[in-house]
Amino acid sequence: MFQKSLEIGYLLDFYGEMLNDRRRTVLDMYYNEDMSLSEIAEALGITRQGARDLIKKAGDELLLFEEKLGMAQKFRALYDCTDRAEEILKKDGCDDRTSLLKILSEIRQIIEN
Amino acid sequence: MFQKSLEIGYLLDFYGEMLNDRRRTVLDMYYNEDMSLSEIAEALGITRQGARDLIKKAGDELLLFEEKLGMAQKFRALYDCTDRAEEILKKDGCDDRTSLLKILSEIRQIIEN
Repeated sequence: MFQKSLEIGYLLDFYGEMLNDRRRTVLDMYYNEDMSLSEIAEALGITRQGARDLIKKAGDELLLFEEKLGMAQKFRALYDCTDRAEEILKKDGCDDRTSLLKILSEIRQIIEN
Repeated sequence: MFQKSLEIGYLLDFYGEMLNDRRRTVLDMYYNEDMSLSEIAEALGITRQGARDLIKKAGDELLLFEEKLGMAQKFRALYDCTDRAEEILKKDGCDDRTSLLKILSEIRQIIEN
């Protein structure tokens, strides 16, 4: 069964620029504009199956980029770090400098690896 | 004139996985193993000019990745943020929570844009 993948929609934000126009367009239609396969097929003058294949191939390309570069995963981890740091900073008192320094070092590791 | 580019050497760490084997190998020889054009030419069984062209093309591909994805630029900016945050945290007292929160917000902006 062909299903929308939240992950692909997310990766499109990261790697969309790396796709050729046709692939970027079709994913944009499908994930951002929420068009149906039939609507996309009509807009591009191809069959519904053709639209489906194009979306699949373009999505696979995004997954390959993520496998090679891992930007999405790194950025998620960085977000998590900033959330934790913010939580610490918003508490009363600021004694937890050690935890903050630890988070900073985590951020560096994410950037470096 | 053909010169080693620190920037290309740096981008190789980010995007090396995206290159085909031949291009990655030649840049690795040139930038990481510090081999000369002649040595690379000999190792690959090509002419010196061929080695030069290959290095140029592979480097251009890295620059294109950076133009499209900007990971190196983002990561440099993130490093800068962590340096500043660390400096604040290492000072005596921890009154500068406002500055730390500002840096966190900068980090988020870098991740989001």
